[in-house]
Amino acid sequence: MTVLRWNGQSVTGSSDELAIEEPLEIRVRGRAISVTMRTPGHDAELAAGFLLSEGIIHSQKDLLRAEHCARNEEANVLNVTLGPDVVVDFASLTRHVFASSSCGLCGKATIASINRRLAPVESSLMISASVIASLPEKMRAEQQTFDRTGGLHAAALFDASGNLLVLREDIGRHNAVDKVAGHCLLNGLLPLENYLLLVSGRSSFEIMQKALAARVPIVAAISAPSSLAMDFAEASNQTLIGFLNSQRMNVYTHPRRVQFDTPA
Amino acid sequence: MTVLRWNGQSVTGSSDELAIEEPLEIRVRGRAISVTMRTPGHDAELAAGFLLSEGIIHSQKDLLRAEHCARNEEANVLNVTLGPDVVVDFASLTRHVFASSSCGLCGKATIASINRRLAPVESSLMISASVIASLPEKMRAEQQTFDRTGGLHAAALFDASGNLLVLREDIGRHNAVDKVAGHCLLNGLLPLENYLLLVSGRSSFEIMQKALAARVPIVAAISAPSSLAMDFAEASNQTLIGFLNSQRMNVYTHPRRVQFDTPA
Repeated sequence: MTVLRWNGQSVTGSSDELAIEEPLEIRVRGRAISVTMRTPGHDAELAAGFLLSEGIIHSQKDLLRAEHCARNEEANVLNVTLGPDVVVDFASLTRHVFASSSCGLCGKATIASINRRLAPVESSLMISASVIASLPEKMRAEQQTFDRTGGLHAAALFDASGNLLVLREDIGRHNAVDKVAGHCLLNGLLPLENYLLLVSGRSSFEIMQKALAARVPIVAAISAPSSLAMDFAEASNQTLIGFLNSQRMNVYTHPRRVQFDTPA
Repeated sequence: MTVLRWNGQSVTGSSDELAIEEPLEIRVRGRAISVTMRTPGHDAELAAGFLLSEGIIHSQKDLLRAEHCARNEEANVLNVTLGPDVVVDFASLTRHVFASSSCGLCGKATIASINRRLAPVESSLMISASVIASLPEKMRAEQQTFDRTGGLHAAALFDASGNLLVLREDIGRHNAVDKVAGHCLLNGLLPLENYLLLVSGRSSFEIMQKALAARVPIVAAISAPSSLAMDFAEASNQTLIGFLNSQRMNVYTHPRRVQFDTPA
């Protein structure tokens, strides 16, 4: 595509690449249960992570298959086959849930009902502050699409030594987290009690809720958390870090998992 | 609240302020039609903008009252009273719509159905590039909450001379746009054919769709647009600007509304 670039002096036409945004309809047992705008790619992971965070599936064995509908030209319909024992409460999935939200409330009437549903995370993970401070640069180096489009959110899992387990990019921050969690579910890597989740941008209630569903004990974000993200992290025994870069970080909840080493 | 701040050397505890994120349930005729995570404040505007972008209301007279439920302690339930002639298709509002989306698809099966529903915008508005380049700084200067919390999105309307009409902040970018559009609906300022909408962050399909519902001809964003935002803007006769700052901008669609003056 072509774009007009103005630099304060002159206008030039040049080619440009944009982050792709397309709708994905997820179908379970023949019924549409979600339509979300996402960056195409890793759709099975996205569906797995979404179903995990909605509490419908809990492990690799619950999800038998995820295939794009062959009759859909644009491959934007994904049929998910769940195990016969998996209970899907379609009514609760589609009740009181609306598109303008990006809220993760999905069929739940109150915040309290979510907090009650998921037990607080238990983990003895500890990571040194200097390792944590090194992670944004590592994530950025792995963001392949961001440099080209300037428009993608990222989510990534790191272990206590700062090794990258998986990174996913998406136009929606919550989708990037769903893809990361879904990747781990599909590969039998749950629970994620020994990993830190790093997200670009802010941390919201929804991000914390998705992290808790995957049992992630530490969530770090490049930008600010919301008030509810902090309240949720406090109640869920999650360590919440914000404004993270190589020089600094804020720790909002459960700081015992961060080792503040004295520099050598 | 208290936060631990690490600066690469030492750790100090200090107080901090976070952007508030709380759920708002919007009720129409006694039925919940939306639960969204938002920053409290201007809730009536948020509801008005949401109902406008969903195509349920179209002008000031369609919305008679918007009042917080007196029995709700936290004031997070808003009862909206619509005119008796307003048709509300509850089935379509709540069908195929799910929380993880932030997608604006809300009950619509396809992108095409949305594009067909709203006519392209008609407007002879033109704004000089130098005026447009001055807007991010003006918006930033008016963002009262951002400086304190580092965590809020903003949306603002400007006229062709660069005068600010209204600015709203919210933890959700789409909420900030809903509040701006809702403000204008509630004050009889629609259609917005003579205004430019500036949003922090990226421009997505959803932002363009909300702008079109309010008949905004020019949408500018500080960061990148998505592919679908561009496709939507092209089809809707909207001028789409990205990567806007005082020194530069990219114009993706319908550039005739931008006057590229030669500097004096």
